Amino acid sequence: MTHPHPVTLDDVRAAAARIDGVAHRTPVLRSRTLNARVGAELFFKCENFQRAGAFKFRGAYNAVSRLSAGQLAKGVVAYSSGNHAQAVALAARELGTTAMVLMPEDVPASKRAAAAGYGAEIVTYDRYRADRAVLAASLADERGLALIPPYEHPHVIAGQGTAALELVEEVGHLDALLVPVGGGGLIAGSATAVTCLGRPVRVVGVEPQAGDDTRRSLESGERVGIPVPRTVADGLATQTPGELTFSINRRLVDEIAVASDEEIIEAMRLAFECLKIVVEPSGAVGLAALLAGRITPTPSRIGVLLSGGNIGARRFTDLLADDF
Amino acid sequence: MTHPHPVTLDDVRAAAARIDGVAHRTPVLRSRTLNARVGAELFFKCENFQRAGAFKFRGAYNAVSRLSAGQLAKGVVAYSSGNHAQAVALAARELGTTAMVLMPEDVPASKRAAAAGYGAEIVTYDRYRADRAVLAASLADERGLALIPPYEHPHVIAGQGTAALELVEEVGHLDALLVPVGGGGLIAGSATAVTCLGRPVRVVGVEPQAGDDTRRSLESGERVGIPVPRTVADGLATQTPGELTFSINRRLVDEIAVASDEEIIEAMRLAFECLKIVVEPSGAVGLAALLAGRITPTPSRIGVLLSGGNIGARRFTDLLADDF
Repeated sequence: MTHPHPVTLDDVRAAAARIDGVAHRTPVLRSRTLNARVGAELFFKCENFQRAGAFKFRGAYNAVSRLSAGQLAKGVVAYSSGNHAQAVALAARELGTTAMVLMPEDVPASKRAAAAGYGAEIVTYDRYRADRAVLAASLADERGLALIPPYEHPHVIAGQGTAALELVEEVGHLDALLVPVGGGGLIAGSATAVTCLGRPVRVVGVEPQAGDDTRRSLESGERVGIPVPRTVADGLATQTPGELTFSINRRLVDEIAVASDEEIIEAMRLAFECLKIVVEPSGAVGLAALLAGRITPTPSRIGVLLSGGNIGARRFTDLLADDF
Repeated sequence: MTHPHPVTLDDVRAAAARIDGVAHRTPVLRSRTLNARVGAELFFKCENFQRAGAFKFRGAYNAVSRLSAGQLAKGVVAYSSGNHAQAVALAARELGTTAMVLMPEDVPASKRAAAAGYGAEIVTYDRYRADRAVLAASLADERGLALIPPYEHPHVIAGQGTAALELVEEVGHLDALLVPVGGGGLIAGSATAVTCLGRPVRVVGVEPQAGDDTRRSLESGERVGIPVPRTVADGLATQTPGELTFSINRRLVDEIAVASDEEIIEAMRLAFECLKIVVEPSGAVGLAALLAGRITPTPSRIGVLLSGGNIGARRFTDLLADDF
C-alpha cells in the first residue's frame, strides 16, 4: 500500500451509508459522576450495544457488502477467536453468503458457539503447529473464498470509522477522542473520520501496558514487534501493528496512552456502577487511562469509544474478585 | 381516596411534560437471543439508565414540581433507604429546594452517600424503636416540610406512568406489559398510561415469590399483609399494597406473576450477557418471570420495564457467585 490516503472521510461516509439500518446506531451515554472524577465532559460511544457485541460488525459488514455477486456466491473466510469471528459470521448471514471461521482447537466453547450461532462453519487448527494466516490464505485459495482480515483492509478500516463519525455527528466538536488500539483498525478509521471534520481533534490511542506495540512503533517511527502480550485485554494483545493501519496511524494519531490490567478492571467496575453497562476489558482501556490520569493536559470534551461488551458474567466476577 | 379515577392518562401526560428535559427519555433495548429464548418480541424499557439509576426520579420530580413556591421555600422530606431517597434528593436539588431523608441507622454507607451526594440532609432513626412514617409525619409537621411518599400519592403515580407512556409511544402497540410490583406505584401509573391508549394491553405485575402481597391482595379482593419478605429484590419487599395504588391496580392489573430469587439472579445474568446492561434484582423480575415460563400464554409483543440498575459490582458478583 503506497497510496498516501488509502482510506478517506468519503470512504467512511460511504461505509456509513452501507451499514445504515443493518448495524445499530449505538447510543452515547454520559455520567455526571465520571465527569466529576475526570474533570472533563465525557461522551461514551457504546459499541458494546453493537450487533454481535462489538464495533467489529461495522467493518466486517462493510467489507463483505463490497464483494461481487460472484464472490458472495462462493463465500468468505476469516481467522479470529474473538469479536471479528462473530462479526464476519453475522455479516455473511445478513448478506446471504456463507462464512468459514478458523479458530484454534482450544478456543472457549462459548466463542465457538457464538460464531456458529450466526451460521458460520468453524474450522479448528492446532495453534502450536499451524500459522493461521497461511492456513486461511490457502483455504481462501482452494475454495475461492474471500478473506476478510480483522484490520488490514481499507473497507474494514472505513467501516470501523463509522462509530466515531456517528459520535461527532451526535455530540458536535470533541477536543479529544480516545480509541482502543489492537491491530489499529478502529483508530485508523476513527482518526480518518474525525481529523477531516471541522476543528482539529486530538486522537489518542490507548493500549494495554503489556501490549504497547503501536506506542513503541510510533516512537521508533517504524513497526516494531513485542513478545506475546499477557493482558486482560485479550482483544488488544497484538505483537505488531498492521502495515496498512500503521501507515495511517503514524500520520493521524497524536499519541498513545496505556492502562494497566488493574486500571482496566477498575474502569469496568465504574462503567458497571456509573453507566450501568457491561464493557469488556479491551473496551475499557480509554476510561482506564483517563481515570489513571494518563491523558494530560485533560481536554474539555472527550469522546471515549467503548469498543465492545463481550464478556461473560462469570469472567467478569472472576476479574473483579481478584481486585476486591 | 374515593374518587374512581384518582390518576388519569391526562395526569400521566401532564407529568411527561413536566419531566421533559429533566428526566432522561431512556432507551428501549432489544435482543434477538432473548426473543428466541422466550418466543416473543421483547422491548426492554431501560430505567436503569434513568437519572439516579431508577424510575423513581420520574415520580419524585413530578410530585416536588407540583408544590407551591411557598412550600418549595420550606423543603421536602422522604423516608427511604433505597432508590426513592436518591430520587427525592435529586428532584429537590433540581427544583431549588432542600430535602431531608430519613434512613435507618444501619443503612449501607453507599446508599447514605448517594442521597447525601445529591445534597439531601440525612436523618437516621433506630429501625427497631421508631416508626419511620410517624417520624416523617412529625418532622414534616414541625418544620413545615412536604412529605413525598414513595407511592401513595397521585402525583408520584402519574410520574411513574411516564416510562410506560414513552415505551408505547416509541414501539407502538404491545400485547402485554410486565412491571415490577413493590408498593404498586410504578404499575398503577403504567397501567393508567397503557390501558387508555388504543388497543387493550395485558398488564402483568411481577413480584418476588417471597413478597407476593399484591398477588394475594388481588386474589382476596382486599389488601392483605404478609410477614417481612426475605428476597434479593429489596426494592419490592413490601408487606402490603398501598391503599391508593391498590384501588387503581385492582381495576387495571390483569394478573400478577412471581419470580424466585434464583430466577431473578439468572435474569440479571442474562441482561448482563445479552443486553450488556446492569439491572438490579428488583428491576429484573419481569425478565425472570418470562424466562421461567410464568407468562402464559406468551403474548407476541411484550414490553418489559427494567426499573433500575442500582447495584454495586461487589454485590452483583456475590449474588452470581452463589449461583455459579
